[in-house]
Amino acid sequence: MQSDEQEIRQLVSTWMAASKAGDVETVLSLMADDVIFLMPGQEVMGKAEFAAAARAQSGQGNKGASQFDGRSEIQEIKVLGDWAFMWTKLTVIVTSPRDAQSMTRAGYTLSILKKQRGKWLLARDANMLAPVSGK
Amino acid sequence: MQSDEQEIRQLVSTWMAASKAGDVETVLSLMADDVIFLMPGQEVMGKAEFAAAARAQSGQGNKGASQFDGRSEIQEIKVLGDWAFMWTKLTVIVTSPRDAQSMTRAGYTLSILKKQRGKWLLARDANMLAPVSGK
Repeated sequence: MQSDEQEIRQLVSTWMAASKAGDVETVLSLMADDVIFLMPGQEVMGKAEFAAAARAQSGQGNKGASQFDGRSEIQEIKVLGDWAFMWTKLTVIVTSPRDAQSMTRAGYTLSILKKQRGKWLLARDANMLAPVSGK
Repeated sequence: MQSDEQEIRQLVSTWMAASKAGDVETVLSLMADDVIFLMPGQEVMGKAEFAAAARAQSGQGNKGASQFDGRSEIQEIKVLGDWAFMWTKLTVIVTSPRDAQSMTRAGYTLSILKKQRGKWLLARDANMLAPVSGK
């Protein structure tokens, strides 16, 4: 049996792998129904807004899928019963299907997770990624 | 006696009032020694880096103090024993002493707090403020 911390690390790995594969449904299964995404210069997103944005990017509804690559380095996980928080250093590279241009964004995330019916889910997420120049 | 949620609301009020007053020591007394500040496009800051930046901005060591104004609207507080998380909508207006130019930044914060020796302290802080155009 995995520890809570191991299960949360697994959630992050599954999230990254599913994002790379364009598997939006798997990503959505890793978040709570009342999840909140917070980002600089943008309004709050819930699960429905996340799903719409992810489906658009994965090519459902337009001509081609953006290619996604990324790396998440977990800096801290703290489990508090059925809740946990975690912060990571995240790098995301999105390549456009139109011109094959890559955009690299990097920075920190701070997330709240909760355990529902024995499964850890993302509940609140602060994403501080900013464009990386060069490369 | 105040509830934990009331004490956390009081912490936010005290933080905002002390920031407006340029009272860096009071602000520092509201954070844990191992506090972590996360921001877009910047490296992680700890308490020492926060103190240095706040003292520079409050005019200790240069010609004049930046004037600070702001408003914090708490969106959610969730208490988990001796830990809590909170997210807010924050607007900060900093006016430079040199040219009286004001800079408004707004956005969300996601914070982790912990209760140490009966007192709530800021422990992890994600700050997603971005410049606001116009005004």
